[in-house]
Amino acid sequence: MELGMVGLGRMGSNMARRLMRAGVRCVVHDRAAEAVDGMAREGAIPARSLAEVVAALSPPRHVWIMVPAGAVDHVIDDLAPLLQTGDAIVDGGNSLFQDDIARATRLTGKSVHYVDAGVSGGVAGLERGYCLMIGGEETIVRRLVLVFEALAPGIAAAPPTPGRAPGTGTADRGWLHCGPHGAGHFVKMVHNAIEYGMMAAYAEGFNLLRHANAGSASHAVDAETTPLRHPEHYRYDFNVAEIAELWRRGSVIPSWLLDLAAQALAGDPALAAFAGRVSDSGEGRWTLAAANDLGVPTYVLAASLFERFASRGEADFQNRLLSALRFQFGGHHEKPVP
Amino acid sequence: MELGMVGLGRMGSNMARRLMRAGVRCVVHDRAAEAVDGMAREGAIPARSLAEVVAALSPPRHVWIMVPAGAVDHVIDDLAPLLQTGDAIVDGGNSLFQDDIARATRLTGKSVHYVDAGVSGGVAGLERGYCLMIGGEETIVRRLVLVFEALAPGIAAAPPTPGRAPGTGTADRGWLHCGPHGAGHFVKMVHNAIEYGMMAAYAEGFNLLRHANAGSASHAVDAETTPLRHPEHYRYDFNVAEIAELWRRGSVIPSWLLDLAAQALAGDPALAAFAGRVSDSGEGRWTLAAANDLGVPTYVLAASLFERFASRGEADFQNRLLSALRFQFGGHHEKPVP
Amino acid sequence: MELGMVGLGRMGSNMARRLMRAGVRCVVHDRAAEAVDGMAREGAIPARSLAEVVAALSPPRHVWIMVPAGAVDHVIDDLAPLLQTGDAIVDGGNSLFQDDIARATRLTGKSVHYVDAGVSGGVAGLERGYCLMIGGEETIVRRLVLVFEALAPGIAAAPPTPGRAPGTGTADRGWLHCGPHGAGHFVKMVHNAIEYGMMAAYAEGFNLLRHANAGSASHAVDAETTPLRHPEHYRYDFNVAEIAELWRRGSVIPSWLLDLAAQALAGDPALAAFAGRVSDSGEGRWTLAAANDLGVPTYVLAASLFERFASRGEADFQNRLLSALRFQFGGHHEKPVP
Amino acid sequence: MELGMVGLGRMGSNMARRLMRAGVRCVVHDRAAEAVDGMAREGAIPARSLAEVVAALSPPRHVWIMVPAGAVDHVIDDLAPLLQTGDAIVDGGNSLFQDDIARATRLTGKSVHYVDAGVSGGVAGLERGYCLMIGGEETIVRRLVLVFEALAPGIAAAPPTPGRAPGTGTADRGWLHCGPHGAGHFVKMVHNAIEYGMMAAYAEGFNLLRHANAGSASHAVDAETTPLRHPEHYRYDFNVAEIAELWRRGSVIPSWLLDLAAQALAGDPALAAFAGRVSDSGEGRWTLAAANDLGVPTYVLAASLFERFASRGEADFQNRLLSALRFQFGGHHEKPVP
Repeated sequence: MELGMVGLGRMGSNMARRLMRAGVRCVVHDRAAEAVDGMAREGAIPARSLAEVVAALSPPRHVWIMVPAGAVDHVIDDLAPLLQTGDAIVDGGNSLFQDDIARATRLTGKSVHYVDAGVSGGVAGLERGYCLMIGGEETIVRRLVLVFEALAPGIAAAPPTPGRAPGTGTADRGWLHCGPHGAGHFVKMVHNAIEYGMMAAYAEGFNLLRHANAGSASHAVDAETTPLRHPEHYRYDFNVAEIAELWRRGSVIPSWLLDLAAQALAGDPALAAFAGRVSDSGEGRWTLAAANDLGVPTYVLAASLFERFASRGEADFQNRLLSALRFQFGGHHEKPVP
Repeated sequence: MELGMVGLGRMGSNMARRLMRAGVRCVVHDRAAEAVDGMAREGAIPARSLAEVVAALSPPRHVWIMVPAGAVDHVIDDLAPLLQTGDAIVDGGNSLFQDDIARATRLTGKSVHYVDAGVSGGVAGLERGYCLMIGGEETIVRRLVLVFEALAPGIAAAPPTPGRAPGTGTADRGWLHCGPHGAGHFVKMVHNAIEYGMMAAYAEGFNLLRHANAGSASHAVDAETTPLRHPEHYRYDFNVAEIAELWRRGSVIPSWLLDLAAQALAGDPALAAFAGRVSDSGEGRWTLAAANDLGVPTYVLAASLFERFASRGEADFQNRLLSALRFQFGGHHEKPVP
Repeated sequence: MELGMVGLGRMGSNMARRLMRAGVRCVVHDRAAEAVDGMAREGAIPARSLAEVVAALSPPRHVWIMVPAGAVDHVIDDLAPLLQTGDAIVDGGNSLFQDDIARATRLTGKSVHYVDAGVSGGVAGLERGYCLMIGGEETIVRRLVLVFEALAPGIAAAPPTPGRAPGTGTADRGWLHCGPHGAGHFVKMVHNAIEYGMMAAYAEGFNLLRHANAGSASHAVDAETTPLRHPEHYRYDFNVAEIAELWRRGSVIPSWLLDLAAQALAGDPALAAFAGRVSDSGEGRWTLAAANDLGVPTYVLAASLFERFASRGEADFQNRLLSALRFQFGGHHEKPVP
Repeated sequence: MELGMVGLGRMGSNMARRLMRAGVRCVVHDRAAEAVDGMAREGAIPARSLAEVVAALSPPRHVWIMVPAGAVDHVIDDLAPLLQTGDAIVDGGNSLFQDDIARATRLTGKSVHYVDAGVSGGVAGLERGYCLMIGGEETIVRRLVLVFEALAPGIAAAPPTPGRAPGTGTADRGWLHCGPHGAGHFVKMVHNAIEYGMMAAYAEGFNLLRHANAGSASHAVDAETTPLRHPEHYRYDFNVAEIAELWRRGSVIPSWLLDLAAQALAGDPALAAFAGRVSDSGEGRWTLAAANDLGVPTYVLAASLFERFASRGEADFQNRLLSALRFQFGGHHEKPVP
């Protein structure tokens, strides 16, 4: 098996490494020549241009694009004319599923096939394997099985699910043909939104634990502050790092995200290195847009996204208006920042 | 009719004024002697102590307490022993309805009656009248009708409701005996939670309008920022003050709160005088506690309360944990503050 | 002044009536001939076709389209070729603001102008006037001032806003040129989302009041039910109709929507005629989509929309999965429907 | 080591079994004699009464109570007089942390010690071990170390956390002394709220996947329905069971809850055995109450709780009011149930 890999950032380079370990011949390209050189030293076939990528592969070719979402269409536009009937492009980046549908239609006109692959795994994927959510034509997906098997974590990565018939499909090896064009990125999109929701659940819980000693503080009493009715109930100085560690075993909420939380909090329980301006990279919004289109309630997924927006100060005008209204009807002055 | 009024702050003094205008004899007391003197100059009977309040009233006495929530029990403890069988205390402050139930039980042992009165109206109440939500015994409420009629806005304050039989009750005059002890403050509590929810609906809407020109800004493109897919759709520089004014006539959303928003925004559309640290004064939390006890979903009321908590920085640790997790699994660095 | 009015449904016919009362000559058309006949009997100029509408107006013509959102583009496609350079189409329906931008571009190619008008007022608009939120070119908007003045409620519909300089603009008469193409429907869209949020705030509050007697019920105690810890706190049988009436005067939360709630509850406090499957007509979703695009948190607006989705059963699979998970980890069986 | 175990339900009996496997001598009691007999056959010392429990243990005695939350105080009232100075009671049930504080104070007067133990693990705990969150006095907790070590999953249950110093404490063995009285149940309470949030995140995500084929349905077009703008984007028939299986390996969201979801969906992807009336057992509400007391925003935790309330029909009156309002201002009729 061989594969062209275009884009050698954090994700693309590790994926190429994992493929080569499994014996897949990788032809690699990146705008940055040093990235190509580096991978060549690790055994990949270097390509200085998209044309070289195409030239180094035998038909039917498979070129996996692993570039930022904004660059995917440019690469496709440059690559497609170099390809032949029957060749296929795989977009492994974070594309919006509607774009996949449009691209597939566009490429069909050129007799080139298109596969969308949602890839999860992050920096740990090289060792842990990548969870692959695939969309596209059945025949093309079948041609890529060896690639998916090489990238995916494999069946040993988790114990079998009781009640699931063995040989049901490929999902238990960590990759799945989810449906037609866009299906892969759709499933990846929902995956990320669930990730946002889970992260928010943990973060709200730990935040609450951090505030559980409010009864020990001496609070000024004024009309603008709701006093703590029973301060004696809130005098806990919890060790959030140790609680994260605790929950990893035997509780209902162990997860890989909790493992990471335990790791982060073990380093510094106050997380002083972070300011708390939380980015979002698109999939949470796309999921909300889909839920909105479909009329499906997603309170938790939406709230976890809005918490990120608000963390970046995007609610400021709203809050000023609330203070202004309180002043209007009640003569309430804002409390000074403590 | 006569009434003792204890507590001559913003609310208590205006209420005494409105009562006197209606011919109610007011015996007034406050810890601050100058407040008592001021009201005396306006025609009230000054009382230097609770004992003087009691002495200046004829049995059965009615003493209206209008003090901060935290001080109500102290005043009741001092006042009750001075009263006689059949006298009544009215708490017009922002008490928790469960406290009303406990106080009524406590005072029953002393043969003193207790009435809870949720009072809405704020600084505008002197002219506009006060909406009164009353809880307690029917016989005692009946003794206070003249007081309620004097304080309430009266039937002319709003057009009649089509389909409501005339003479149905007192609600259309702006006061209502809502039920037994605590019922008044329960209804006031829910009123305030609805107020929070409405304020949040307006504030979120105006905030969105303020951001509608994001497509005009030049945004740096990086992996941590979701780019605006169609900047050409978001190039509106809305005049939020004029839009608030606009919606006051003929739309579906006119309200007194919108009137106040229009007023605040007319003064300064940027609301630069406010930092956006929004206080909450208890009723929103009590409503959430009641909904929680009763198992009633209140997404909007809860979210409007949480937005106030978050405006005061109470989500900071949560947000830092989210950034820490993103760094753990994706190597994502927080974006610097712009 | 004269105007073509295409679409004589509930909204279009009442708007034509209000225009004619103000002396505007109305040329009216609808697919349903009897609707045209009816308006003709009230003094309008009947037009059997779009061509007749155009023929009956003098250039520069103004044709106001008041048809369902899905039909607007069809009408424009049929109408535009009949118009001359300098004529203008006004879309007064519930269009998505991005469609306005696209249509304006399309019509510019034909030298026909386009104005988007968000119209609020509902069935009460004929008497109350319509709140008009306008987007488009300044010169065209200016040509339509007499139409806007006739439709809008006028300055007397609400008291002046303290602090707002007289003569600031037209907003205090109930219409406003909000900005370029799409600005009118954008502001209308946010208006409707605020309406959803306000409605939800009231509805959650009244729902809570309806549940306040849960302490009077006798509840079976089992492991699947959280018992009410203090049933003695929740024994209120509130009259929600009278409470709605009460809040209309002197409280912080009077509004037109509260007037309507009082009216609905006066008719039947149990609202037995309604099943509670709440529709949404688009603007709430569009607002959420815009907030999502812009990265602006709108917890309350989103929750109020999701509550409508959920009321229609769209959370059912989610809920079944939650019950299934509870059974998996805790052996919990679902409680039978009471 | 020896321990009294009172309450031999699903949790208590399995915990006794796990303790006996580790060599802890268990004196067991339950109101149901057959439960005691059954455990006796497995090697436990049967006790027909609390007095027999006390008699069979040597001082200082430790009696672990594992009974429904509502029964804990009754057992403590019966048991405490039988105990001697220095003996200790452990409440391993789902108690509210404030109750722990009150009980500890009460028992201190009797010179009996109190320990609160939040226990997580469910039906899988016998094999998997129980995560133990402990509150109480350091000296008493130390006396129970062998019990905690026997019940907890042990260090091998999860890989070590990078960056956590070895020997930091007991958390990595699955039990932790979290703080003074109530601390154990406080941490357990937050654990369960996080569990609710995570469950909701998954459930919303899978619900969205289930709706992703809405574009294939033929929808009636009417003014009460927002049509799907691009049905061609939503024609995915996702296999939710296989997607749950897929995400278990290599993705960002593996967790024990996902394992259970995969198991439930493998059995029946439609989950037809469940009606979707989701119970809550207290801790979610207690967490919300604590967040409310402390002024900490918990949008996601609250929404996940409200979704359970709503699944049981508790939003019905709210929804009817929304439909009633829509009818009032827009003449909108509810759509019939499809």
